[in-house]
Amino acid sequence: MPMKSPVIIDLKFDQEEVAAALKGAFPDREVVNLLHPIHRKRDLSGIDYAVVWKPGADLFSRAKDLKVVFSGGAGVDHVLTLPGLPDVPLVRFVDDTLTTRMSEWVVMQCLLHMRQHRLYEAQRDKRIWRELSQPEAKDFTVGIMGFGVLGQDSAKKLRTLGFNVIGWSKSGRKVEGFETFGDSGLDTFLGRSDILVGLLPLTPDTKGIFNTGLFTRLSRKGPFGAPVFINAGRGGSQVEGDIVASLNDGTLHGASLDVFEQEPLPLESPLWSMDKAFLTPHAAAASDVAALFRHVEQQIERLEGGKPLEHLVDRNAGY
Amino acid sequence: MPMKSPVIIDLKFDQEEVAAALKGAFPDREVVNLLHPIHRKRDLSGIDYAVVWKPGADLFSRAKDLKVVFSGGAGVDHVLTLPGLPDVPLVRFVDDTLTTRMSEWVVMQCLLHMRQHRLYEAQRDKRIWRELSQPEAKDFTVGIMGFGVLGQDSAKKLRTLGFNVIGWSKSGRKVEGFETFGDSGLDTFLGRSDILVGLLPLTPDTKGIFNTGLFTRLSRKGPFGAPVFINAGRGGSQVEGDIVASLNDGTLHGASLDVFEQEPLPLESPLWSMDKAFLTPHAAAASDVAALFRHVEQQIERLEGGKPLEHLVDRNAGY
Ligand SMILES: NC(=O)c1ccc[n+]([C@@H]2O[C@H](COP(=O)([O-])OP(=O)(O)OC[C@H]3O[C@@H](n4cnc5c(N)ncnc54)[C@H](OP(=O)(O)O)[C@@H]3O)[C@@H](O)[C@H]2O)c1
Ligand SMILES: NC(=O)c1ccc[n+]([C@@H]2O[C@H](COP(=O)([O-])OP(=O)(O)OC[C@H]3O[C@@H](n4cnc5c(N)ncnc54)[C@H](OP(=O)(O)O)[C@@H]3O)[C@@H](O)[C@H]2O)c1
Repeated sequence: MPMKSPVIIDLKFDQEEVAAALKGAFPDREVVNLLHPIHRKRDLSGIDYAVVWKPGADLFSRAKDLKVVFSGGAGVDHVLTLPGLPDVPLVRFVDDTLTTRMSEWVVMQCLLHMRQHRLYEAQRDKRIWRELSQPEAKDFTVGIMGFGVLGQDSAKKLRTLGFNVIGWSKSGRKVEGFETFGDSGLDTFLGRSDILVGLLPLTPDTKGIFNTGLFTRLSRKGPFGAPVFINAGRGGSQVEGDIVASLNDGTLHGASLDVFEQEPLPLESPLWSMDKAFLTPHAAAASDVAALFRHVEQQIERLEGGKPLEHLVDRNAGY
Repeated sequence: MPMKSPVIIDLKFDQEEVAAALKGAFPDREVVNLLHPIHRKRDLSGIDYAVVWKPGADLFSRAKDLKVVFSGGAGVDHVLTLPGLPDVPLVRFVDDTLTTRMSEWVVMQCLLHMRQHRLYEAQRDKRIWRELSQPEAKDFTVGIMGFGVLGQDSAKKLRTLGFNVIGWSKSGRKVEGFETFGDSGLDTFLGRSDILVGLLPLTPDTKGIFNTGLFTRLSRKGPFGAPVFINAGRGGSQVEGDIVASLNDGTLHGASLDVFEQEPLPLESPLWSMDKAFLTPHAAAASDVAALFRHVEQQIERLEGGKPLEHLVDRNAGY
């Protein structure tokens, strides 16, 4: 039996988590963790696999024989722009843990706006006991832009809570049980969305898509008279100046942002102190490193067993 | 055909909402809204039905012939203690709108604690960008005390989000798909609950049940090392001094309260300013007045059509 190819790990994640997750991972092959000093000058030729997140600039020139590159995250915009990225299959990270966490975040943000959490917190600060008139989930339509793995899971959970949910994707793909829209249906989709959830990958097509022009096309017929914008896809898809202006002039009722044009969000961003916005530091759905390695193991097993790889990135589409 | 009995309305709710909901309600019988001055001296004898929430002290002496009393709320502790309450069937309010709203509140509170919302809000106030180590829903067991209409609906929705859910009720009733406990299983149930959700009616048995003695029996093996207490049943079931002390000494990791021993919560309560507690002013699941009247209409229709009334209160059990 030929020796199994080692796997290169080059992940700019918390190194304690990586080390802990590597215990017991890839039991049948060598692991070359490039963040470990002993591998600094290691010859990487002849190695088939690399798992990367913000890898060293010289990785692809050193590892010339890669057969598959695995992204350490679900989004691959960072990977696709790496200089020297070889023309081999690129596999993105898809995992139940990540999907479930994202849905937790999305459901919570929808509820925070719907249940007027900020207003109740402000009343509490002043020790004011006052019940607010309260719409319920079924009074809202949540429009999800990016109806892929994450969008569809959030959709199912939001619907269980009672929200109406519609989806929008590039292909306008049909998804059992949901009304979906493609490019030509964008206006109808936006006009029906009281809450807009962004779960799009960052591609040339989606860069800056969440701007004032789009916000003004959203529904103003919902219980709050103005729409809510929620984004956990990529910050590059949003125009933060437009979000700030739209919150200030009432085009938007509220916002929840997990991703930003520049991360960490610059100290001088007005978003930090806007009452109508909830912010989290790109924490909606962290990649669980142990789950990442399990996913890579499974894909390598498929490949070596003659089965096709899953979760392949389409380089032309950019996701 | 004999004349249909009028229905007495005596609801200390928002009177605009009551008036709006009465439009079109009870189309085939007279409505006697006692909060309207013209009915001040109206003879109420011979009337079969009354829908009440904090009714006038003389209601039951004036309406001597009531055949059914309808509670304006899901809880009937206020009604059962009314002086002069006649010994006739008492029907409580059960409605999808109310149930759904309660589940929205319960799910949101569980997520707020689990996703460390207060910590993220505090970081945001200081413009700190820091991702916190984040457990996920499946790392938590939510124990629901009071596994009736509301408890079971919350359970289903929490489970869809990924939480483990167990239930506790007086009868220890079996509920398809959930592990449930009765009186004798209380210790096991508490020892497994990382998040405890109270959805109990207030009865002599449940008065003051949420106290330090109970909190110390909850699981300390969850991701936060101490349990979270959430209550939306009735304030009389909780000992607020114990909640404050337990939050201060670490017996409890956090709390969410919608109900209080005294409502409105007194200005001097330390709960108002406790960082570890989320508070709402008995607003988890408001009775929708239009839905209340539809429910009363349905029950009257059942009764007059010879069918048994639903949602009858067991006066001995107190709920
Ligand atoms: N904040 C976080 O913590 C976090 C964590 C993980 C992932 N993410 C982000 O979430 C994104 C989505 O992840 P996923 O797993 O759901 O990806 P996915 O399964 O590939 O789904 C992407 C969806 O976006 C649609 N789409 C792509 N380009 C489009 C365009 N130009 N116009 C309209 N629709 C377009 C796709 O349409 P089709 O269905 O027609 O292909 C698909 O429905 C990732 O790319 C990543 O950037 C963020
Ligand atoms: N905060 C709000 O806005 C709001 C709104 C609506 C209602 N509520 C409160 O929520 C309560 C529950 O409503 P629901 O519609 O779910 O009532 P329900 O269907 O009657 O359920 C009550 C549950 O509590 C259990 N229970 C009662 N006494 C018990 C005891 N001594 N020990 C253990 N379990 C006991 C019952 O056990 P069995 O299953 O064995 O009978 C049942 O599972 C209401 O009574 C009301 O006080 C609050």
